[in-house]
Formats: sequence, structure tokens, C-alpha cells
Amino acid sequence: NASGPESLDYEVVESAAYREDQAKRGRWHYRSYITLKWIYALLIGVGTGFSAFFINIAVENFAGWKFEATFIIMKHSYFLAFLIYAMFNAALVFSSVYIVTQFAPAAAGSGIPEIKGYLNGIDTPGILLFRTLVGKILGSIGSVGGGLALGKEGPLVHTGACIASILGQGGTTKYYVNWSWLSVFKNDRDRRDLVTCGCAAGVSAAFRSPVGGVLFALEEVTSWWRSQLLWRVFFTSAVVAVVVRSAMGWCTHGNCGHFGSGGFIIWDISGGQEDYSFYELVPMAMVGVVGGLLGALFNQLTLWLSKWRRNVLHKRGARVKIIEAVLVSLLTSVLSFGLPLLTKCRPCPDPEKYPDIVCPRPSKHYGNHVNFHCATDHEYNDLATIFFNTQDDAIRNLFSTRTQHEYSATSLIMFLSMFYSLAVITYGTAVPAGQFVPGIMIGATYGRLIGMLIVNLSQKDNIDEGTYALLGAASFLGGSMRMTVSLCVIMVEITNNLKLLPLIMLVLLTSKAVGDAFNSGFYESHARLRQIPILESRPQRYMRNRTARDASSSTKVVQFARIAQVGEIVCTLRTVQHNGFPVIDHLQSGETVVIGLILRSHLLVLLQHKADFQHSPLPGGPHAYRYDVREFAKPVSSKGISVHDISLTTEEMGMYIDLEPFVNPTPYMVSEDMSLSKVYNLFRQLGLRHVCVVPRPSSVVGVITRKDLLSEE
Amino acid sequence: NASGPESLDYEVVESAAYREDQAKRGRWHYRSYITLKWIYALLIGVGTGFSAFFINIAVENFAGWKFEATFIIMKHSYFLAFLIYAMFNAALVFSSVYIVTQFAPAAAGSGIPEIKGYLNGIDTPGILLFRTLVGKILGSIGSVGGGLALGKEGPLVHTGACIASILGQGGTTKYYVNWSWLSVFKNDRDRRDLVTCGCAAGVSAAFRSPVGGVLFALEEVTSWWRSQLLWRVFFTSAVVAVVVRSAMGWCTHGNCGHFGSGGFIIWDISGGQEDYSFYELVPMAMVGVVGGLLGALFNQLTLWLSKWRRNVLHKRGARVKIIEAVLVSLLTSVLSFGLPLLTKCRPCPDPEKYPDIVCPRPSKHYGNHVNFHCATDHEYNDLATIFFNTQDDAIRNLFSTRTQHEYSATSLIMFLSMFYSLAVITYGTAVPAGQFVPGIMIGATYGRLIGMLIVNLSQKDNIDEGTYALLGAASFLGGSMRMTVSLCVIMVEITNNLKLLPLIMLVLLTSKAVGDAFNSGFYESHARLRQIPILESRPQRYMRNRTARDASSSTKVVQFARIAQVGEIVCTLRTVQHNGFPVIDHLQSGETVVIGLILRSHLLVLLQHKADFQHSPLPGGPHAYRYDVREFAKPVSSKGISVHDISLTTEEMGMYIDLEPFVNPTPYMVSEDMSLSKVYNLFRQLGLRHVCVVPRPSSVVGVITRKDLLSEE
Ligand SMILES: Nc1ncnc2c1ncn2[C@@H]1O[C@H](COP(=O)(O)OP(=O)(O)OP(=O)(O)O)[C@@H](O)[C@H]1O
Ligand SMILES: Nc1ncnc2c1ncn2[C@@H]1O[C@H](COP(=O)(O)OP(=O)(O)OP(=O)(O)O)[C@@H](O)[C@H]1O
Ligand SMILES: [Mg+2]
Ligand SMILES: [Mg+2]
Repeated sequence: NASGPESLDYEVVESAAYREDQAKRGRWHYRSYITLKWIYALLIGVGTGFSAFFINIAVENFAGWKFEATFIIMKHSYFLAFLIYAMFNAALVFSSVYIVTQFAPAAAGSGIPEIKGYLNGIDTPGILLFRTLVGKILGSIGSVGGGLALGKEGPLVHTGACIASILGQGGTTKYYVNWSWLSVFKNDRDRRDLVTCGCAAGVSAAFRSPVGGVLFALEEVTSWWRSQLLWRVFFTSAVVAVVVRSAMGWCTHGNCGHFGSGGFIIWDISGGQEDYSFYELVPMAMVGVVGGLLGALFNQLTLWLSKWRRNVLHKRGARVKIIEAVLVSLLTSVLSFGLPLLTKCRPCPDPEKYPDIVCPRPSKHYGNHVNFHCATDHEYNDLATIFFNTQDDAIRNLFSTRTQHEYSATSLIMFLSMFYSLAVITYGTAVPAGQFVPGIMIGATYGRLIGMLIVNLSQKDNIDEGTYALLGAASFLGGSMRMTVSLCVIMVEITNNLKLLPLIMLVLLTSKAVGDAFNSGFYESHARLRQIPILESRPQRYMRNRTARDASSSTKVVQFARIAQVGEIVCTLRTVQHNGFPVIDHLQSGETVVIGLILRSHLLVLLQHKADFQHSPLPGGPHAYRYDVREFAKPVSSKGISVHDISLTTEEMGMYIDLEPFVNPTPYMVSEDMSLSKVYNLFRQLGLRHVCVVPRPSSVVGVITRKDLLSEE
Repeated sequence: NASGPESLDYEVVESAAYREDQAKRGRWHYRSYITLKWIYALLIGVGTGFSAFFINIAVENFAGWKFEATFIIMKHSYFLAFLIYAMFNAALVFSSVYIVTQFAPAAAGSGIPEIKGYLNGIDTPGILLFRTLVGKILGSIGSVGGGLALGKEGPLVHTGACIASILGQGGTTKYYVNWSWLSVFKNDRDRRDLVTCGCAAGVSAAFRSPVGGVLFALEEVTSWWRSQLLWRVFFTSAVVAVVVRSAMGWCTHGNCGHFGSGGFIIWDISGGQEDYSFYELVPMAMVGVVGGLLGALFNQLTLWLSKWRRNVLHKRGARVKIIEAVLVSLLTSVLSFGLPLLTKCRPCPDPEKYPDIVCPRPSKHYGNHVNFHCATDHEYNDLATIFFNTQDDAIRNLFSTRTQHEYSATSLIMFLSMFYSLAVITYGTAVPAGQFVPGIMIGATYGRLIGMLIVNLSQKDNIDEGTYALLGAASFLGGSMRMTVSLCVIMVEITNNLKLLPLIMLVLLTSKAVGDAFNSGFYESHARLRQIPILESRPQRYMRNRTARDASSSTKVVQFARIAQVGEIVCTLRTVQHNGFPVIDHLQSGETVVIGLILRSHLLVLLQHKADFQHSPLPGGPHAYRYDVREFAKPVSSKGISVHDISLTTEEMGMYIDLEPFVNPTPYMVSEDMSLSKVYNLFRQLGLRHVCVVPRPSSVVGVITRKDLLSEE
């Protein structure tokens, strides 16, 4: 438990040092602080945009080379081609899993549950380090380029968050790139805002969906929100959009190898269905229901598998993780190469009836109608079109409009079952893994299947299979991730078609409702599995009938006297795990009074510095505060000092320390019979770490109402 | 001050009665409560959708008849046509202002500042009544149909909120339509959620922009937000979209008179500019700057004018208000009819070069190139195209793409200055008034002007004036209302063009930044003017250096003893204006202890019921609680009982009452030296009404951390 996640301190510690610091700061300081925040928002946008661009170029080029080589060799030998293909994949996946397991264990998986936890107030060790960033970028190039059934979009959110956090502390802690003017952002509160920007930037870069990014940050990851922040997040997203667009503009001139035709999701379906009749709402709701069911099943299966992995497989160390990932890669290669081989090719559509369709696809191009293991040149392999392709192209093909009857139902069903299983198996291997793109693939496949059914049943011309594929994709994501507004906007932005908005909303509402009947959302349940204790926005029902006093553990409160003996402090810190301790003072009248709460981390800083030790157990004169507020700031994503790092002589142990200047004199307090649900609201809404439960007060010295809080201008 | 806005009580009063009530409620009760909330979301969506539809039909038909009649008579006499036109307008405006001043004074103006205040915790009297709803709907039909320079979109937000609130209490209080199962929503907290849904529904219906509606509610109006609420708001928006679409589908068959061709904003600009070169970012940023300047000026001018109106003009009573509105209407008629008369017509574009353009517009049609007071049949009047038209059509014409050189710069400048002045003058007359559409008109005009400049300077073909008009519109709204994300999404949804998203973002960011340099946003400053004390999300800087004790007024706290004499209570309530009073008890040991806070409204209920009066000044036995929690609920938008309504005999005055069962035993407390900015955060984030300032506690009986708040499953 000692290495488990730990809470963040968002509360302002209004200690004497802080107050002095605040008093010093003028208007100018405040201005520069605000300006800096905006500059950071800009930098985060630029950084995330370029990272996304880099990942995309790399992935597209690796995949491009792979398919090019495979297709060339295929002309001579299918077996050799398979070997090359499988080796290429395995090598990429191996490099990914190697980097992750050896250098950046925190980069495995999607990262979104951890970031969500971070913004909820829980720090998972290592999640925002520089090495995690590098591992995430390189790892997702390997795993996505290696053709695994996972996406690069989720990891980009994590990447954005890492960039934000690293920028926020002015470089990595490792290399002590540490300018004093940057350390304004060294507290958890400011860092939280930056990380929010980073998340939005990640989504914005992943899908080229700036508004979707803002909404994703708002709906899915953050727990607190302020309207100032909204504006800054929006700005970051806009910057990302501009950066990505410029970078892509540079690539259109063929500067980026295979990148340029694929990459960077925009699956334009503007040619599709514009309108819908009312009876179509029934099959569309059906798509939603199927999405809810399959999504909930997906969550459940990955959850079980992850549990098993955690408890059994991954306990055996990094070697097993590497072997596992490579085996999954081989399985993926076998299926994606082998299954199309077993399917019969289909004749190309009549070129007179469909003059627009190029069939089969010319080599070195991307598009529909892949000719793979076909007898003649006028045939195409529909399974290969989606299975033996990069995921981006496969989705484009599934979404493609005005290509009715391109796929046979058997191919789609076979693909659906195989890919679904692969996606379930792949999630949880020790590589960076996003769930968006596989989700879209799965959803698009059954969506298109349902669409084919409707086309056959209704015999109407204006029904488009591609539109159903889009709705299917939305429904699966809705059923698995349970987002609504943000997903809706992302789907609209990536398909560039606003007309379908109401339909997407309908499908999302259905699939979320169906999914919610079974289990909780993907990120939530995986956060729970990883023991990231995220607090929901609403208290549990049982909390209404419990009081704060019942809730706080029944043992005695561990507290310190104002002038405490150093040895006693060290001893207490060694024996209990708590992170906050009330500090008590005795008045001359003999009564006790609580003068505040002191944090373990602050105590440790004091013990390490030793500068405030004194020989007498009496309060000294007015203090000259040797400390800067910043010295108490904890570095990001690390445990800070531990009590075991502190070595003190016996003499020092016998000395005293006056804690008064260092306590937080005004922790939030609740009276002991407040219901736990009210305490919960306080805790959750303000992002607290400690709430002191106190007896009823003996008097009220004032009442603060709205009038007292209005600006005095 | 007694009739000024009053705070709402969002806090849970955990009185004995409440606890008993909670204990009674089972799982089933909770389920039905949730279901009911969803049913309400549905009903709000349907209600708002139909209201919007009704308003649109009415406005379009009135305007249609007006223009039809005017154009027919114009063939005979221009003077007669003007008379008819002006009379028609004046009659509509008169009916609007008459209804508003006589029956629903709260329906005047935009309503958004008040709703914003409501969701921030401030109740403006009368703002959510049934009569306000009716006044708002009828009034905005009159004022918009009457051609004033204001829109129907802002009032729709208010309409949606009213519908939500009225549904929420199961009908109007006036007619006592009051089913007991509906009264679950009679507390301020639930009502707040419903009103949020209503706001989103309003925007969604006004612009047919469901996602924009959700974001508007989130960014501009609400102050608290929970993710559950997001989903419900999203659902409401989707319902509105479906309702509006179905209703419009019914109208395409000519069932709705003039409605069908115009109405319901969707200004499709899909033919416009798809791409932009980098140098264009400069003129676009310029559009943003101009928008910021003009928007800030607009805010300032309307503010001054409103102040003057409030202090001078509108003090003279309803008659003056009516006369004022009719005069403004006459002025509008004169300008919109007269100015086009003075402009010279322009020859129609060469039909060979532009075969798509129909010029002049055939009669009974809507579109560009209005023939108005032209010498020949192959001419059109560009000023009449925008000025002598409904606003929706005018905007469509301003946004219209591929119609380069349609407008002369002089016409646009003349229109801009005239319309800007009209918009400034009109806002603040006693009619329902939205600022969206006039803002779009103004912005589109100067946007198009700048676009024309760029077209002339660059001589490039792919630059489109319509696109600049759109950006101009965004910039003006951004500069005046200072919204970002929601405005961006609304603009994209109403123009149905996603490609322009980054440009709109850029323009909005610039214009908001420029505007913020001068003054605060439109709604905020008007809320301040109306003395709606909205609390910003962030504390003021000076609050860091003040303590809670300093902030609470220096006079003694007015408090009650647990067993208080009725006469004393009445006397206190009469002499002070406070709304919350601490209640003190004396322990046997002689110490005092604060047992809670009692609200004025609850005291008044007790005084009115008289059931709990007792003769002895000692606490009675265990109480049989005669009260239901609901009896303490205040009806919406009314002051509830006043202390002057209560009549008590002298004997009753001498009796006692035990307040203990009725107090809120757990008000939020802060210790006296907490900085005011921390108190502010507590107050604002939790939506409180009272915070008790208490001395430091003498001991801590427990510490609550995250672990204690995690679910116990
Ligand atoms: N000073 C204290 N004295 C007594 N009990 C405490 C004290 N601080 C915390 N506790 C109790 O100990 C339990 C765990 O405390 P701990 O401080 O480890 O918090 P936590 O929930 O793990 O969060 P964190 O991430 O801050 O460690 C809680 O149930 C809490 O009520
Ligand atoms: N019980 C009380 N005893 C003494 N002073 C009080 C008490 N309640 C409020 N005050 C003070 O009186 C002033 C105004 O109080 P009031 O109760 O009218 O609140 P308000 O801000 O107007 O909000 P509301 O809308 O609830 O009336 C505040 O400055 C507050 O500090
Ligand atoms: Mg702990
Ligand atoms: Mg008051």
C-alpha cells in the first residue's frame, strides 16, 4: 500500500509563510502569472500537436513500408510475404513492449484512467514523468505500427497531459532544469489546470477535433471546472488544430513518405445519407442497443482479463510481459493475413454502373477494393480491405458511402468476431493502448451489417451503409466509454458531417443507457481495478444516514502539540501512515485549541532542514521565516521525501520544534453530526484532502452571506 | 431593497424532519425520483421545442403578411405602402409592449442575466412565473414580428427556463395544480437542475443547435455543474432537435403559411470558402479586433442607456414605456423603409457570367437581390436586400456565398451605422429582446465589408465575402457576450460548416481578448446593472488578505435561544432583514453550544402554523413531527410569507417555541481567521447562502480523508 496512489493537495495552506508571500506579491506579479499561464497553454498546444504529428508520421511510414514490402513479396510467395509481415509486426511490437517494460512501466495501457484520477485528486506514481512521455510516444508508434488491435488516440491524451506537467515544472526533475520564475506552477493546483489543457490538446490532436477535445476534458477527465479554465483549454485546442493543419500542409508535398494520404483521422462521409425517415429510428435505436450490449461486454471481458493478468500473469515479471505482447502480435498477424486468404474474392462492381469506383485498388494507393489473393485482376477481397490494412484506412473503407454491397455479410461477421476478440486480448498487454480506434472498427462493422440488413429489407436507395457504420461506431464507443456530449462532437468532427448530429445523439443516449444497466464505464472500471480511488460527483445513498463522526475511523486522532519534540514527531510519522495531523495548543487558561493541520510532507521538509529545531519547549520570538513557499512544494509524480530518508542524531531527537508557522491554520472543518453526504459534497467539490471533524462550536462570531462576498469596488 | 433579489437555498437542511423523511424513503422512491427527472427532461424538451415552433410560425407569418401587403401596395403608392408598413410594425410592437408592461413586467429584456443569476443562487422576483412565460412568448412575437432590431433567441432561453420551472412544480401556483407526487421537485436544488435543462433547450430550439445549447448552458448560465446533469441536459437538447425537425417536416407541405421558407435559423454556407491561406489570418484577426471593439462599445452604450432609462425614463410609469417602444418602432420603420428609397439601384449581375443568380428576386420569394424602388426590372436595391427584410433573410443574404460584389460598400456602411444605433436604442425598451440576431447582423455587415476589402486587395478567387460575414458575426458576438466554446459550436451548427471551425475559434479568441480589455460581458454587466449579485467563479484578489471575521459585518450576530419566546422572534424578524439565525442552547454545565442555523422562511412557517407553540420555556418530550419537509418549501419566484402577514394574539406572543427540531444542525462553518478567498470558494462551489464564522475549535474528533468517502461495496 505504501507505493499505492496518494492524494494531491489542492488546498491552499495559508501558513504564515504563504501569507507573507502573498502580501509581497503585487499586481505585476499577478499579471505575469496570468500571462505565463497563457504562454503555457500555447506551448502545450504546440508540443502536443507536434508529438501527435510525429507519432502519425512514424506510424504511417512503418505501416506503409510494411504493406508495400508485403505486397511486393506476395507476388512471389505468400508464405514469404507472411513471414516478412509477421516479423515486421513482431519487431515493432517487441520494441514497444521492451521500451515500456524496461524504462517506462507507467506508459502501459491507455493512461486515461490515471489522468482522470490525477484530476480527481489522486496521484499515481510515475504517471507524469518525462520517461513516461518518451515511453508513451515510442511505445505507441511500435504498437500501432505493429498492427495490434489498439489505437494511438488514448495514449495521445496521456502524452498531452505529460507534456503539460513537464512544461509546468520547467523541464524534468531529473535534469534540474529549474528556473525560479517557472516555479510558480509547482503546486498541485496550477498543475491540475495545465494537465486539463494537456488532455484537451491530446484529443484535439488525436482526432483533429478541437471542440471535442475541450468537451472530452470537461466531461470525461476533469472533476473540477472553472469558466476561466474553459477558455484556456479552448485556446490550447485551437492551437493544436492550427499546428496540426500547418504540419500536414507541409506534408502534402510528399515530404513525409507514406504519410499524407492516410494518418490523422478525418473520415469524411459527406457523400452519405443526409436525411432519415421516421421508421429508420427503429433500426438506429437497435444499433444503439447492440452497441450498449457489446460495449458493456467489452468492458466486462477486459476487466476480467486485466484482473487475471494483474494477479497471475504479470506477476512473473517483464519477460512474461514481453513474450505475451509478441505472441499477441503473432496471433494478430496470422489472423489478419490468414483469414483473408481463406475468403473467396468477389468480382469488382460493374464499371459501367459505378463509374467512380476504382477496382481493384492500384498498388501504392489507399482505398477500397484491395486485391489480395485473387484469381483475376478484376476481383477484390473484401475481408482484406478491412483486415489487411491500417486501421485508419479500414475505418475509412467501412464508413465509405455509396459503396453498397461492397462487403459480404460473412466477411463482416468474421471480421467482427475476430477483431473483437483481438481487441479484448490486446488491451492489457504492456504496451500503450487506446480504445477509440478499435472501438470505432468494431462498431462500424456491426453498424454496417445492420445497414446492409436495412438496405436489403427496405430496398430504398437513400439508405446508406456507411452512415450506419458511423452510427455503429458511435454506439460502441457510447456503450463502452459512456461519454455523451464529447463523443457526439468528436464523431461529428471526425466525419465532418453535421447533418447526422441528432441521429448520433439518439444512438449515444440509447447505448449509454443500455450499457449503464450492466456495468460502469470503461475508464471508471479500469481506474477501480487499478485501485485509483476516484470520487464520483455524487455521494452514495447510504451516506445520507451516516454522520461525519461515524465515518472518520474510530481510533483516536493522531495529533501534535504546537511545540513538539522532534523524536516524538519522527516516531509518530514512522508508526502511522496518515498524511495530515491536527496541531493543538494550550492556552494560558488551560483550555486547548486547535491551531491547524500540518501535512506529513511539510513535517518531513522541516525535519530534513533542521533549521527550526530549538532547545526550549517554549515558543520562540517572532520568526524570521527562512522558508519559501516553494520549498514545501512536492515534485510531480514522485513520493517526495520519506520518513526513512531522515537521519537525526539523538541530540536532535531531543530538541523541539514550533510547528505554528507551518500549519495550515484554516483547514475545512465540519461539525461531528453533519451527514456524510454533505461532507462528501464539501470534499469533492473543493477537491480536499483532509476535513477535520470538530465538536459543535460554542458560539457564532459572524455570518457570511452573499453580500459580504461581493466585490467592493 | 425589500423587493430586491433574494438568495436561494440550495443547502440541505438536515433537520429532524428531513432525516425522518430520508429514512422512510426506500430504493423504490429513489428510482421513481430519477425516472421523474428524466420524464421532466423530456417534457421540457417537447415544451420548449413547440414554443419555439409556435413563435417562429407566428413571427414568420406576421412578417410575411406585412411584406406581402407592402409590396403589393407599393406598386400604387410608396407613401401608402410606408404607412401600412409602419402601422403594422407599430401595432405589433404596441401589443408586445402592452402585454409586457401590463401583465408580465419580468418578461422585458433578454432574461438571460436573470436566469444566470437564478442558477448562481439569486432569485429575481417573478422571473419564472407562468405569466412571465406567456408574456415572453407573446411579447417576442410582437417585437420580432414588428421588425425591431432585436431577436427571438435570447427570450427563448428564458422561455425554456420558465417552462422547466413551471413543469417542475406541476403547474402554476396560482391555480393550485399541485399533485403530491410532483412536489419532489419543490426544492431549490432540483429546480436549479430543471432550469439548466430549460436553458439548454431554449438555445437548442432557437438555433437548432443541440450541442451548442448544452454548451451554452454550461459555459454561460450555470454556476454549478455535475456530470449527471450533463447527460440529462444533452438529452433535453436532443429531444428539442427532434421535435423541431418533426414540426418543420409537417410545415413543408405548406401547412404553415409563410413559415417554411424562412424561420428557424440554419444559414447554410456550405458553398463558401473551404480553405484559407496563412496571410488571411491577418485580416481575420482584424475582424476579431473590430468585433472586440464594437462589441465592447455596444456593451458600454447599452449599459449607459439602460442606466438612464432606469433612473429617468422608466420611472415615469408604463405609459412612457409604451410610448417609447412605439416611437422606436416608428423610427425603425422610417429607417428601414426610407434609407433604401434614397439608395440608387444597382444593375443585376450579368446573367451569362452568373447563370445561378436569380435577379431580381421574384415576388413572394425570399432571397437576394430585392427589387425595391428601382427604375427598371433588371436592377436590385442592395440596401433593401438587407434592411427591408426579416432579419433571418437579411442574415442569409449577408452570409450568402458566391455573390461577390452584390453589396456596395456605401450601403453596407450605412446599414451598419444605422442598425448599430437602432440595436443600441432598442435594447432596454420594455419588450422581450434577444441580442444574438442583431449581433449577427452587425457582425456580418462589417465582416462582409472587410471581406470585400480583402477580395479587392488580393484579387484571388477563393476568398469569399460570405465567409468573412460569418467570421464577423462570430467576432461581434464574442466581443459582446464573451462566450467562447458555446458560441463557436453555435456558429458552426447554424452555418452547417465545420471547415471553418479553426477560423471561428481564432476570431472568437481575439475578439474576447480585445473586449475583455475594456469591460465585462454583456450579460454580466447587465446583471450587475439590475443588481443581481452574481458571484464569479473566482474570488477577488483583495480577499486573500482579509479574514472571515473581518468580512462578516461588525455588528453583533443576531441569534435565538433554543427555546425562544414567540414575541421575541417576531420582534427580531421585524427589526432585522437577515435570513438566517444561529440557534444557541445552554448545556447543564452552563456552557453554550450552537445547535444550528434557522432560516427566516422556516421560522415564518412555524409562526404561521402556531402548532408548536408551548407554554413552558423548557424543552418538551420527544416530538411528533407534524411537519412534512415540503411544507417548508418556498414556491418559485415569490417571496413566500412575510413577517407582516403574521398576526398573533398577545397570549401567543408570550408563548415559547422549541426551535431544535427545525434548525439546520449542520450549517457549513469556517474558523474566524480563514481567508475570505477560501470562504469564497466554499460558498461559491457549494452554492451556499450562509456560512457561520466560529472560533477555533478546542479539539478535533476525527479526520476525514478520501478513504472514508469511498463506497463500501
Ligand atoms: N491524523 C489522524 N488521526 C487519526 N486518524 C486519521 C488521521 N488522518 C487520517 N486518519 C484516518 O486514517 C484513515 C486513512 O488515512 P490516510 O491519511 O492514509 O488517508 P488516505 O485516505 O489514504 O489519503 P492519502 O492519500 O492522503 O493518504 C482514514 O480513515 C482517516 O479517517
Ligand atoms: N444572523 C445574523 N446576525 C448578524 N449579522 C448577520 C446575520 N445574518 C447575516 N448577517 C449580516 O448581514 C448582512 C446582510 O445579510 P442578509 O441576511 O440580508 O444577506 P444577503 O447577503 O442580503 O442575502 P439574502 O439574499 O440571503 O438576504 C451580511 O453582511 C451578513 O454578514
Ligand atoms: Mg494513505
Ligand atoms: Mg438580504
